[in-house]
Amino acid sequence: MQNDLSHYYVAIMAGGVGSRFWPASRDQKPKQFLDILGVGKSLIRLTFERFLSIIPAERILVVTHKNYKSLTQEHLPEIPEQNIITEPSRNNTGPCVAYTAFRLQAMDPKAVFVIAPSDHVILKEDEFLEHIKEALDYAAHNEAIVTLGIQPSRPDTGYGYIETSEDSRQILKRVSSFREKPDLATAEEYLRSGNYYWNAGIFIWSAMTILQNFKKDSPDIYSILATDVSKYNTSGEQDYIDSVYPTTPSISVDYAILEKARNVFTIPVDIGWSDLGTWNSLHAYIDKDSDDTVLIGENTIMIDSKNCLVKTDPDKLVIIKDLDGFIVVDEEDVLLIYPKNKEQEIKQIRSTYGKGGYL
Amino acid sequence: MQNDLSHYYVAIMAGGVGSRFWPASRDQKPKQFLDILGVGKSLIRLTFERFLSIIPAERILVVTHKNYKSLTQEHLPEIPEQNIITEPSRNNTGPCVAYTAFRLQAMDPKAVFVIAPSDHVILKEDEFLEHIKEALDYAAHNEAIVTLGIQPSRPDTGYGYIETSEDSRQILKRVSSFREKPDLATAEEYLRSGNYYWNAGIFIWSAMTILQNFKKDSPDIYSILATDVSKYNTSGEQDYIDSVYPTTPSISVDYAILEKARNVFTIPVDIGWSDLGTWNSLHAYIDKDSDDTVLIGENTIMIDSKNCLVKTDPDKLVIIKDLDGFIVVDEEDVLLIYPKNKEQEIKQIRSTYGKGGYL
Repeated sequence: MQNDLSHYYVAIMAGGVGSRFWPASRDQKPKQFLDILGVGKSLIRLTFERFLSIIPAERILVVTHKNYKSLTQEHLPEIPEQNIITEPSRNNTGPCVAYTAFRLQAMDPKAVFVIAPSDHVILKEDEFLEHIKEALDYAAHNEAIVTLGIQPSRPDTGYGYIETSEDSRQILKRVSSFREKPDLATAEEYLRSGNYYWNAGIFIWSAMTILQNFKKDSPDIYSILATDVSKYNTSGEQDYIDSVYPTTPSISVDYAILEKARNVFTIPVDIGWSDLGTWNSLHAYIDKDSDDTVLIGENTIMIDSKNCLVKTDPDKLVIIKDLDGFIVVDEEDVLLIYPKNKEQEIKQIRSTYGKGGYL
Repeated sequence: MQNDLSHYYVAIMAGGVGSRFWPASRDQKPKQFLDILGVGKSLIRLTFERFLSIIPAERILVVTHKNYKSLTQEHLPEIPEQNIITEPSRNNTGPCVAYTAFRLQAMDPKAVFVIAPSDHVILKEDEFLEHIKEALDYAAHNEAIVTLGIQPSRPDTGYGYIETSEDSRQILKRVSSFREKPDLATAEEYLRSGNYYWNAGIFIWSAMTILQNFKKDSPDIYSILATDVSKYNTSGEQDYIDSVYPTTPSISVDYAILEKARNVFTIPVDIGWSDLGTWNSLHAYIDKDSDDTVLIGENTIMIDSKNCLVKTDPDKLVIIKDLDGFIVVDEEDVLLIYPKNKEQEIKQIRSTYGKGGYL
């Protein structure tokens, strides 16, 4: 069967604030717009370029908060302005996905799309794209919700898990349940069983299928956004969305759809994935020097220090001696020196001390 | 005997680079021009204002490197421009003192002056000024070199010591010798004996007396700077100094004069003095919070940290957790995080890593 690739789309979700990456990530310029890896490109740019080798810019959409529209244009000048669809409020990924699906359905009733976060990294790009194409092809011909299931390498308690049926021997495995972030013992059990995968939050489906799922399993979101479907992909869309979107319930697509749906599949993948959720995940991800230290900033001198992550402006000279196990993030207006093993506190530190212009 | 106060002058030495206070102190704006104490005034401004209550601005001179003339004008707008005398090269305090004496002698043959560093702090200002007046009065009527001898409070190995004759019971004690920085055992012996004082580098003498001392004990410096005494205090002085001054030997006034002179006296004083020579001396000097931490910067949050010194821009939000015994100095282009007990290395760190625009 020949697949008509012209109906394949990508939607990049870029509305988050990245509070766990504070003070590098800010309300006005969150993580996805930063060169967190120190490679000269922002995470959203890396995400865009990754997809660009299989989907042209004209069929890549970004769904983001309205505050980030101009940042998005700046980072992704190739995509048409109308491909940046903007949320007037942050209502989590449920309404975000539904809005994107309504828009794509209006653009192309046969639209099949992958929706993915803008701020993850994927090392094995070829494997990733191969699986994305498999998933798109499957979703084009089946009323299926397809996810990528990351082969777990450790009993991580920071991710949700996808449970597959034990007897599934297909490339696409049927999903029997979604599991929230487990405790360590449960995570270890998941790892041993071999039937559990990390939920990377990357989903593939046709606009028609996911809207059917919303209609059935999240009728409140569906009905609000379906108030006047004639508005989608017209000059009246933004006013319409500004009016109805904020009234949708704030809920993740996992809760709204995935945990209820019966037509969910996963493709187990090994793609060098990280959600870069925290400074520690960045530390784990990036190549370290012999002292187990990650330096982002070209002008940093570490003396007798180890197990640190230091992020600064490339032009700033940083000299650190005898420091062990710290995150050092130096921004123009904020300096954070924080023990690595307490990084889960940073989100709270941000909200406690960041008020007054530092959020 | 009535003293004619109109012949009393102050010369503030402000030519140093403050390398041990790097990266706060820079070649282009050294320590004396910084608000190191976080009180809203630079050290040179504090020094100037201290003397201003006994000597008018018209009789306060600053002797500094030519690079710092405009900085000096900026910090001390009250003093006449001709009172800023500028060295074309850094030749240590010997030539600096001799030049200042030649200039003052040309301005006022009866000049008596105190010459003092610009970057020390003195807590007990009234006691200090009282002793300065005693010293000026004495030097006005005697061919004496008068120093202030700081009552030592600890066996400090970082200062030179002034030894007084054991039988001296006068306010002014005759100095029997100057001792270079001692080892700890020697410093402890000095402290026990009661006849030794810290040399604060604050000297009082008449221009005539100190020039006689130079002529006798440092004839090389004297003869170079006396090549054409008619140039002093004229429009030709700067060109003349630019030509002869760099040929003087680079030597401290301690070595050039004080160690050789027989007419040296000291006034033992307890004036709350610190030379603020290093970050640790600043840490020792400034009021600390309950965690033994000094914060210079109004927006610094220390959590579970102790025994630190943190200097940042007042507007910068700094959040530090679990740090013990570190100096943190954050400048716009340099961040230094260094163990307090290794601060003697900072001068070397500066010259090793500061090249390329950070000195």
